[in-house]
Amino acid sequence: MRTPAQNAELALLLEVAGTPKPGNVDRHRDLEGLRFEHFLAGTVGARDGLELAENGSAVGPAFERAIEGMAEQGGGNTQFGALLLLVPLVRAARNDLSQPIVEAVCEETTVADAAGFYRAFDHVDVFVGEPPTEMEPLDVRRGSDAIPALEDRSLTLFDVMDHSVPGDDVAREWLTGFERSFTAAERLADADGPLTDRAASVFLSLLADRPDTLVANRRGEAIAKEVTERAGELVERNALETDRDAVEAFADELVERGVNPGTTADLTAAGLFIALEREAISV
Amino acid sequence: MRTPAQNAELALLLEVAGTPKPGNVDRHRDLEGLRFEHFLAGTVGARDGLELAENGSAVGPAFERAIEGMAEQGGGNTQFGALLLLVPLVRAARNDLSQPIVEAVCEETTVADAAGFYRAFDHVDVFVGEPPTEMEPLDVRRGSDAIPALEDRSLTLFDVMDHSVPGDDVAREWLTGFERSFTAAERLADADGPLTDRAASVFLSLLADRPDTLVANRRGEAIAKEVTERAGELVERNALETDRDAVEAFADELVERGVNPGTTADLTAAGLFIALEREAISV
Repeated sequence: MRTPAQNAELALLLEVAGTPKPGNVDRHRDLEGLRFEHFLAGTVGARDGLELAENGSAVGPAFERAIEGMAEQGGGNTQFGALLLLVPLVRAARNDLSQPIVEAVCEETTVADAAGFYRAFDHVDVFVGEPPTEMEPLDVRRGSDAIPALEDRSLTLFDVMDHSVPGDDVAREWLTGFERSFTAAERLADADGPLTDRAASVFLSLLADRPDTLVANRRGEAIAKEVTERAGELVERNALETDRDAVEAFADELVERGVNPGTTADLTAAGLFIALEREAISV
Repeated sequence: MRTPAQNAELALLLEVAGTPKPGNVDRHRDLEGLRFEHFLAGTVGARDGLELAENGSAVGPAFERAIEGMAEQGGGNTQFGALLLLVPLVRAARNDLSQPIVEAVCEETTVADAAGFYRAFDHVDVFVGEPPTEMEPLDVRRGSDAIPALEDRSLTLFDVMDHSVPGDDVAREWLTGFERSFTAAERLADADGPLTDRAASVFLSLLADRPDTLVANRRGEAIAKEVTERAGELVERNALETDRDAVEAFADELVERGVNPGTTADLTAAGLFIALEREAISV
């Protein structure tokens, strides 16, 4: 039987292999400078950090280690957001992978966990928007330089996530007991066919539910809304079954426009992990 | 820096992601009942066995553990041959990943290692041809039931590999100091472009060099020879650069005919590992 860390690795691999996953690297698409192989190497590199979480390490240090390993490839940030979801989920799976348990894991994080999170930014460039002026000393782009400010204000990692909502739907999972991740897991279990097809279908449904926050931060809310509406139309008419070419064309168009719904991919990976770990899906 | 076990995992992933890889599962092709996701799960499952080898465990037990984990997915045998090459290579990498060292690792295997190899067949169905009558008690398909016969004859794992040549080009690597695996690594380093493209190109060149022994055992030597000659024509006219459609068509044709050059894929994975481990290629 696979361990939680192994299921997390497999979830990352199945997520990137799902196709068509409009706008993102998938089994059939590479982006300029960010290719399928970078995600494979990122997954292998994240392993030690995932094992730390499985073995009971605190969330912050396990996350930092996962990011340090993930970043040892030439594509840059491949799975930062996905790992920010997977590390607490793996930690929860030691006990029981339920919403209340993962909620408790997040709420019990400390200032030291927040420091680990900030140190993770020293290893890789992650796209984030400008913080409000009063939060400038805590800008994550400062990496470990922001740790004294963090300590001054006694902010835990949960507090940091709390400050990131709204505007970051990965952080939102931390505040809502991983609501959308668990929904994704249910949808994966209810879907039919190979897991890579299910991953693509659940990705599209998540994209239709809410505008992707990475797209909103990078390209503006209007584009994020447009993408969600178009995903909604495709889901509405069950296009993956009835008109796959339309989904493939949408996927190609977003890649060409450089519109990458990365947050939705992170949620898909989290859903895959939950469904694998609960044996609601199998390979 | 990735450990040898991590590089072995990455080699397995890059191998299956290489495309077009005529006749095999690749980034763009699934076979009936054997899909891309089975190779992803097989890779994740093989991890513990690869770590045993990295930590100095004997080859036989590490191999058995790798196969046991690999087999925990519904596709059946995904990477048996590749792991039979990777486990001694990972073991050698503890010291120095050179031909003489891996040769020594193989020559120093014991009867207990051979028993581990036979036990691996208890975990998964592997296609092998009929053995000659005098070898019937040692038919690998007997799995652990053959261990007493093995012990009676004091056969080491190296001896077992020696008895498997000719007719098995994975075993042949054990006898030749992994000659073709090291050649593959050099070709990977000399090639250009993303590693998944290089993997496809080196796969085709290896297929052109010698008939694939899995194809020969399953489908007969005439078909194995035909496939190698056609691969040779494609390599000769540099078709991956000048006429990619011809290689894609050849790949589709072999998949349709159920002709799967699995031994050549195993050698490609071994070459990827060597090249990664020696930092002759990078992701």
